[in-house]
Amino acid sequence: MLLRRILGIDPGSLRTGYGIVDVRGNAVSPVAWGVIRLDGEASFPDRLLRIHRELSDLILLHRPTEAAVEKVFLAKNPSSALKLGQARGAAIVTCGAHGVAVHEYSAKEIKAAATGYGGAPKEQVAGMVARLLGIREPIPPDASDALAMAFCRAVTRDDLS
Amino acid sequence: MLLRRILGIDPGSLRTGYGIVDVRGNAVSPVAWGVIRLDGEASFPDRLLRIHRELSDLILLHRPTEAAVEKVFLAKNPSSALKLGQARGAAIVTCGAHGVAVHEYSAKEIKAAATGYGGAPKEQVAGMVARLLGIREPIPPDASDALAMAFCRAVTRDDLS
Repeated sequence: MLLRRILGIDPGSLRTGYGIVDVRGNAVSPVAWGVIRLDGEASFPDRLLRIHRELSDLILLHRPTEAAVEKVFLAKNPSSALKLGQARGAAIVTCGAHGVAVHEYSAKEIKAAATGYGGAPKEQVAGMVARLLGIREPIPPDASDALAMAFCRAVTRDDLS
Repeated sequence: MLLRRILGIDPGSLRTGYGIVDVRGNAVSPVAWGVIRLDGEASFPDRLLRIHRELSDLILLHRPTEAAVEKVFLAKNPSSALKLGQARGAAIVTCGAHGVAVHEYSAKEIKAAATGYGGAPKEQVAGMVARLLGIREPIPPDASDALAMAFCRAVTRDDLS
């Protein structure tokens, strides 16, 4: 059976969450998850390089076949948008450099994949992600978001997105 | 004599300018410059990957010893900031992945390096960059900005920036 292994990434300039799931037929199971914590005192180029190195290590270790990130439409303000954008660019390029295609899903699609409702509150999504993947221990929020993205990709049939 | 070769990058989600200069003692000379034009219809991950690939090729071809980008403080709005940020993140991580350290300079520092005045208008900076580097042919604006960044790095003594 063809195994798909999906890396979900929730990029940020202070914390970048990641979550990896395996897909076998209809079964989706968790492989690894966590948060890359960045030094807020470090220069921006250094932080981006850190995201690149840690994600590269994760990709080389776990060999995902594809990746998922959240589509971003709006950010709060130009300054936070610039920071988020850089972290996002670093993450996407790192996947691409390793030959891992990145697929984008809207927040609505990600929430609907886990709960059946695109407008579900954050806690409900986190609760369902843990339940659907059978994870009993507490999951850090950034890692949970990343797992939700990976889960969304796992159950989405449209491979063209 | 120790040769420094500096890659200046002006990242953007539609056009990414680059300019490479050599530094021998007090002499700064141009090596290559140009613009990576991106398909506005392509997906954002594809565009970022394109920046990554083209910059990687340039780095492997010209082997710069260091890189310079403009420090960005403000963007017009969250949407353009997000786009700029992603292009910037892609460019910075590509340099880092090839072991090329990226140094940031403010617009003021870049303008002052070329014209002696941090508030100089864009055309004056472009004119001086062409003159200082002895380039007679027309330079596309994005490439000229990138050459100005490389020139600024070339004449800046502070290696800690």
